[in-house]
Amino acid sequence: MSEIRKDYATPTWVVFSAARSQRPGAFRNTKDATPKADCPFCEGHEGMTPPEVLAYRDGGTADGPGWSIRCVPNKFPALERSGEVREHRDGLLVSVDGVGAHEVIVESSDHDGHLANLPDLQVEDVLRAYAERHRALAADRRVRYVQIFKNHGERAGASFSHPHSQVIAIPIVPLRILEEIEGIRAHGAEGDVGCLYCEILRRELEMERRIVVENESFVALEPFAARFPFETWILPKAHERAFDSVSDADRRVLARSLKDVLGRLYRALDDPSFNYYIHTAPVREREAAYHWHLEITPHLTEIAGFERGTGFYINPVVPEDAAAILRGEIRWTSRPE
Amino acid sequence: MSEIRKDYATPTWVVFSAARSQRPGAFRNTKDATPKADCPFCEGHEGMTPPEVLAYRDGGTADGPGWSIRCVPNKFPALERSGEVREHRDGLLVSVDGVGAHEVIVESSDHDGHLANLPDLQVEDVLRAYAERHRALAADRRVRYVQIFKNHGERAGASFSHPHSQVIAIPIVPLRILEEIEGIRAHGAEGDVGCLYCEILRRELEMERRIVVENESFVALEPFAARFPFETWILPKAHERAFDSVSDADRRVLARSLKDVLGRLYRALDDPSFNYYIHTAPVREREAAYHWHLEITPHLTEIAGFERGTGFYINPVVPEDAAAILRGEIRWTSRPE
Repeated sequence: MSEIRKDYATPTWVVFSAARSQRPGAFRNTKDATPKADCPFCEGHEGMTPPEVLAYRDGGTADGPGWSIRCVPNKFPALERSGEVREHRDGLLVSVDGVGAHEVIVESSDHDGHLANLPDLQVEDVLRAYAERHRALAADRRVRYVQIFKNHGERAGASFSHPHSQVIAIPIVPLRILEEIEGIRAHGAEGDVGCLYCEILRRELEMERRIVVENESFVALEPFAARFPFETWILPKAHERAFDSVSDADRRVLARSLKDVLGRLYRALDDPSFNYYIHTAPVREREAAYHWHLEITPHLTEIAGFERGTGFYINPVVPEDAAAILRGEIRWTSRPE
Repeated sequence: MSEIRKDYATPTWVVFSAARSQRPGAFRNTKDATPKADCPFCEGHEGMTPPEVLAYRDGGTADGPGWSIRCVPNKFPALERSGEVREHRDGLLVSVDGVGAHEVIVESSDHDGHLANLPDLQVEDVLRAYAERHRALAADRRVRYVQIFKNHGERAGASFSHPHSQVIAIPIVPLRILEEIEGIRAHGAEGDVGCLYCEILRRELEMERRIVVENESFVALEPFAARFPFETWILPKAHERAFDSVSDADRRVLARSLKDVLGRLYRALDDPSFNYYIHTAPVREREAAYHWHLEITPHLTEIAGFERGTGFYINPVVPEDAAAILRGEIRWTSRPE
């Protein structure tokens, strides 16, 4: 059974999962370039994964070939689906049973595919699968947050190079979401009528210099205090609380935005390792104001002692420069050869 | 001029430093095995660094050979020593001028040295240099915290393999220190008379299973909610608020403890990349209760999308196992070959 423990003093939570130590690359010295023959996400290898929980397919039967997108439980799950969420308190030692879910969404049957280069419709379907799995897992009364995320490249923690995303449903609202909710609340309390993130969009569009690209429904920008070089956020212009309520029409536009931004990062930084993750409203806190968005963070620098010690970050690239580079106005001269 | 910016919504601060982008390995694809001929920290190469601010030497003159420990300003500083700490507020955009200090402490003239293998007296001198520079920088009225830390190995962000530590003085109390102070305050408010960290020591020594090693003055343990595999803390048994007030006698014992723990990590994990950093009381907040300690975090796993998205961590090694491995009772079987 997994266990989620809280630090003695701080609001830091850690998931301990014995299963995770058995996965390939758990202690990273394997390459992520899994050969097709061994790839559990390739068509014809469906037997290498647990049975699918969702698949988009034109033909074929469950757990056979013929799919375009396939979602399966993670074979090495951080959290498990069975059991109740009990809290354990023993003086300073606080923990919660590691109940939740951990799934993989295979984004394409193309082993060497990259979201930036997949057809628009395929990326749209990836986003649709995210929303479907979010809704399905949010229906579990034990779940309080559903984190959708993607690791691309070995540096970013990907164990497999075959394009895939992951979904982890957890019984606790994550610290970073709580911090954002508190920021939104504090902004509202200052007498402002609007949502903090709506205000960010208004200001940043007005100032222009951190905007990467904008279309009818979404804005991609480098945030003012980007923690990482080329950290990029995609936000819906309309005030939308939750990712899974995005309309079909908007999902089509979002697919284009996401492909566009990932393509810019790919070209400017030569296919960098990156993570992205969707920040959306918690599933139980119906009253909490929120404005969903997607954050992309390339892995170009190391998190070192200063960052681990302080919780601060050092970023050698100001977001204004990163935005100009991603807009194609200047070239990145510090780029390693 | 460097700039320290706050995230729109959350208590995340980021240091933007153009100088940092020029340093070797800023975007990590250089190896950290700097050849001696190019090493700015080797004896005889003193001209490759800014003038020293502290050195322990038997003979010779400032900025010449003959030293055993040498402290110099970082050539690529995250923060600069000149100017006033002005705060800038423009609606959602909050920043502070990047004033502070950034220094390097060269731990030995031996290019291939490792703290775990240096003579006891040398490690004691490294700790003495930490305390001296902490006191010197804390005397600057603009400084609110002094972070002493070490990056060892490329994965841990070290640009140079020659053994060295760093000191960054910042004009803001870091988030993680504030969180610990709040944890200590909350613990006290529950009617407990003792310090939270004193209580952690009492409980953990009683339970034994997360203790790595103990001597007359210090305890090394794997914390209950270790964020990283083999994360190890060293805490003084006596309630001591600040690192720079450690007595000479205790510093001698601490040097032994630190060498011992680093040696255990070296042997069990085959010279892993790691960071350590000293958490000590902020320099201005005289009333805040604190209990200094040193945290060591090896780099064996990647921080991926789930961690970046949530602020949670996934750790595949429970601290009880890590402690048993570091005590030499069991071998680490998941260790990558």
